[in-house]
Amino acid sequence: MDLAVKKQVLRTFTYGLYAVSCADSGEVNIFTANWLTQVSFDPPLVALSVENGSKSLPMILRSRTFIVNVLRSGSRELAGKLGKSAIQHPDKLKNVEYDIGANGCPILHDAVAWVACNVLRTAKAGDSTLVVAEVTDVGMLAEGTALTMAEAGFKHAG
Amino acid sequence: MDLAVKKQVLRTFTYGLYAVSCADSGEVNIFTANWLTQVSFDPPLVALSVENGSKSLPMILRSRTFIVNVLRSGSRELAGKLGKSAIQHPDKLKNVEYDIGANGCPILHDAVAWVACNVLRTAKAGDSTLVVAEVTDVGMLAEGTALTMAEAGFKHAG
Repeated sequence: MDLAVKKQVLRTFTYGLYAVSCADSGEVNIFTANWLTQVSFDPPLVALSVENGSKSLPMILRSRTFIVNVLRSGSRELAGKLGKSAIQHPDKLKNVEYDIGANGCPILHDAVAWVACNVLRTAKAGDSTLVVAEVTDVGMLAEGTALTMAEAGFKHAG
Repeated sequence: MDLAVKKQVLRTFTYGLYAVSCADSGEVNIFTANWLTQVSFDPPLVALSVENGSKSLPMILRSRTFIVNVLRSGSRELAGKLGKSAIQHPDKLKNVEYDIGANGCPILHDAVAWVACNVLRTAKAGDSTLVVAEVTDVGMLAEGTALTMAEAGFKHAG
């Protein structure tokens, strides 16, 4: 398999951009994610791939909960900011506006919508962990369309 | 949770449209999928959610292999045709042009690109099964952009 072609092909996949928030032991974090999809209608489930080396994965696995904030079109800068490593940039949430949801996780003021989730199970997925979670609550915050990877010009795939 | 809002919120997620092909016991099938994402860079893995009641799920679980065909912009009609139930429409592949790949699964003439995958593991996901698979081979077939759910106007989410 030609690795350059592999990268080019996998970058033809279509993605949205989301800000996933979590909370554990009095601390919160929010990170940009694109490897996310609904996986079941009944019950409504989503799956999210989270990097094994991230700050948020152990937080999510301990608290068993997270919120998917659907970023809105035009939020490229916010997506870039939240996409930085929380370990290397511990102050990355500075000036990011949010409220705390019922499950303790941040809901961004600037999101189109949010989806609160409870972790059901995980599956090993190479350098990441696939988290399968049930949708427990939702909110619609604004009209308007969601931010896509295509709009942002990001390339987190390949 | 208000079910109408739940549907509205989950439909803000961004999806591409793919034609997933499989082969088992001398038979092939191809179905339209949108619940698909890369989940790891190293090794390159994808995750695909497949309806438990589908014809293809047992084929994939037996053969342990499938191909993701990335549909191209403008292929709404093909996506709709392949999105029909193979159980209810056993002749749905009639007039669909494809070759057979090295792993026995169809590669659509009309795809932008294709990704051959070997199943690593599965995870229960409500009315569907989440299939985690390793990318074993790829091909780029055409210039041009991929078909998205937004372009097609389909609503397989909520």
